[in-house]
Amino acid sequence: MIIDIHGHYTTAPKALEDWRNRQIAGLKDASLTPKVSELSISDDDLRETIEQNQLRLMKERGADLTIFSPRASFMAHHIGDFNTSATWAAICNELCYRVAQLFPEHFIGAAMLPQSPGVDPKTCLPELEKCVKEYGFVGINLNPDPSGGHWTSPPLSDRHWYPIYEKMVELDIPAMIHVSTSCNSCFHTTGAHYINADTTAFMQCLTSDLFKDFPTLKFVIPHGGGAAPYHWGRYRGLAQELKKPLLEEHLLNNIFFDTCVYHQPGIDLLTHVIPLKNVLFASEMIGAVRGIDPTTGHYYDDTKRYIEAAKLTAEQRHLIYEGNARRVYPRLDAALKAQGR
Amino acid sequence: MIIDIHGHYTTAPKALEDWRNRQIAGLKDASLTPKVSELSISDDDLRETIEQNQLRLMKERGADLTIFSPRASFMAHHIGDFNTSATWAAICNELCYRVAQLFPEHFIGAAMLPQSPGVDPKTCLPELEKCVKEYGFVGINLNPDPSGGHWTSPPLSDRHWYPIYEKMVELDIPAMIHVSTSCNSCFHTTGAHYINADTTAFMQCLTSDLFKDFPTLKFVIPHGGGAAPYHWGRYRGLAQELKKPLLEEHLLNNIFFDTCVYHQPGIDLLTHVIPLKNVLFASEMIGAVRGIDPTTGHYYDDTKRYIEAAKLTAEQRHLIYEGNARRVYPRLDAALKAQGR
Repeated sequence: MIIDIHGHYTTAPKALEDWRNRQIAGLKDASLTPKVSELSISDDDLRETIEQNQLRLMKERGADLTIFSPRASFMAHHIGDFNTSATWAAICNELCYRVAQLFPEHFIGAAMLPQSPGVDPKTCLPELEKCVKEYGFVGINLNPDPSGGHWTSPPLSDRHWYPIYEKMVELDIPAMIHVSTSCNSCFHTTGAHYINADTTAFMQCLTSDLFKDFPTLKFVIPHGGGAAPYHWGRYRGLAQELKKPLLEEHLLNNIFFDTCVYHQPGIDLLTHVIPLKNVLFASEMIGAVRGIDPTTGHYYDDTKRYIEAAKLTAEQRHLIYEGNARRVYPRLDAALKAQGR
Repeated sequence: MIIDIHGHYTTAPKALEDWRNRQIAGLKDASLTPKVSELSISDDDLRETIEQNQLRLMKERGADLTIFSPRASFMAHHIGDFNTSATWAAICNELCYRVAQLFPEHFIGAAMLPQSPGVDPKTCLPELEKCVKEYGFVGINLNPDPSGGHWTSPPLSDRHWYPIYEKMVELDIPAMIHVSTSCNSCFHTTGAHYINADTTAFMQCLTSDLFKDFPTLKFVIPHGGGAAPYHWGRYRGLAQELKKPLLEEHLLNNIFFDTCVYHQPGIDLLTHVIPLKNVLFASEMIGAVRGIDPTTGHYYDDTKRYIEAAKLTAEQRHLIYEGNARRVYPRLDAALKAQGR
């Protein structure tokens, strides 16, 4: 089975964006705030956007199941306050739940959290618990910078975040560390902010002893780990300067990288440098890079092609495609087993 | 000849740091502000710190010449105001000039600028001109984030920076895009802020048409280009989405990457993915990563070993070691020719 651990509902019906725009307008003029009940999206609407997009491409490319979460760039935790995010997260998570209900063989949910800059992360716990316990979600997306490019929250190693980690450990779910839209003009969202956040999160873990406090906590760092694998020598050397254990012991029981790296040499480096038990298949399809690479004639984000072309044994590919996902997402494994898979 | 285009005076005599600490103390209590004349560093002091450190390692490793600039993490442009930076930059640049005078075969200067957050970059021009015209410096370090991790300046494509670019073009010098210490607790200085800044600068250029306005402007993006080469497929794809020309045409007449990547697989990727005319030898020795890699028994930052082991022809290695540096730093080439080299 081929499990893509990183897909977002980037193709949701236009009604969702329209509702969000009204919600944002309501922040300036409360009379414009829409009710949740004013958003109406039918199962047929959902089916159409999925069948024509993600599911079509999954079938074409040969992926079986996607861990599916709300559109990352639309989380926009910097907009409004906690209540704004709470309402928005509930709507977006419910849509992913409905997609998973409609296509139970092909999609399973991961939650966005109702984060808001300066607000205690424990306010996210009710939404998190609902998504896991009622919706059957198997992971969360945790935004290390809800300010959207101003980086005003403490690092991930700070006790600020511990309520989330305690709940993750209790529920046995991993977090993908994933920022949202940048509202800092220095950072292009998908070209700089996403990749920087990956690198930053990795380094925040490296300098800390977070995983001594939470030995079973699991983070997935997306987009191939940002710059970390390319600079693995730098990170090994910095850990050494900081008198930390070897990275394998210090971080790699807890940190995992996905394969959202959109060319062969990048995937070759990732699978050569990082232990394969730490690499999980993903494409972030349909995401930031939607075009066809003129040098290959294939979609940039058809990452399965790179995994197929990498120097790997069948057993190693199985780890990347399925085995690691079942281990890192125990609730995914349980859900698959309940389906007889 | 082997030219290392990226070295900082990280081993300056302790008197320099002591003076800086007094300068910083003077920001709170003006009576503590030291005079420039109170800093006394003899030629013997300079000789000793260089001969025992950078020059010793250059000789051991086989590098002939280093483009030498003030310690990047000590630039700390966020401290004080323009006058603070102006005095500090003048002191640090003069020390690099004196090192180059003492070891003219082995060191040549590049300038730090007296940047200060929110201050017009054109205030940097007198120091820049002095360094090039009087000190014979061949390049500058330009900090895209003088706030030190808060990213409050406009992107490098903004007209804000144009006075610097106009002077660079006039004097025919490149800029290395190099941040300084992070004072944002989210970003470890050398593990996150440096690498993020490289990625950010690259993407700022990608989304803009800066090099249409300045066709001869040249940027060196250090630390192997941050995450850019590892994610080259993503960047090619994003350029395509943004209807920009191919990266070779759009950016690679103006952007160059150094080889400060501290393991073999990273250098292999860099030299495989990026046209070799855009890759310049560098080590940033003695810098962030000073230890010995237990997997090789050699210094992480002995990057010449990786270039030697990469699949390259002698001609390609010559480009990386010398040819590209002479082309990207025309004043370096002229200085070498004046020495009969």
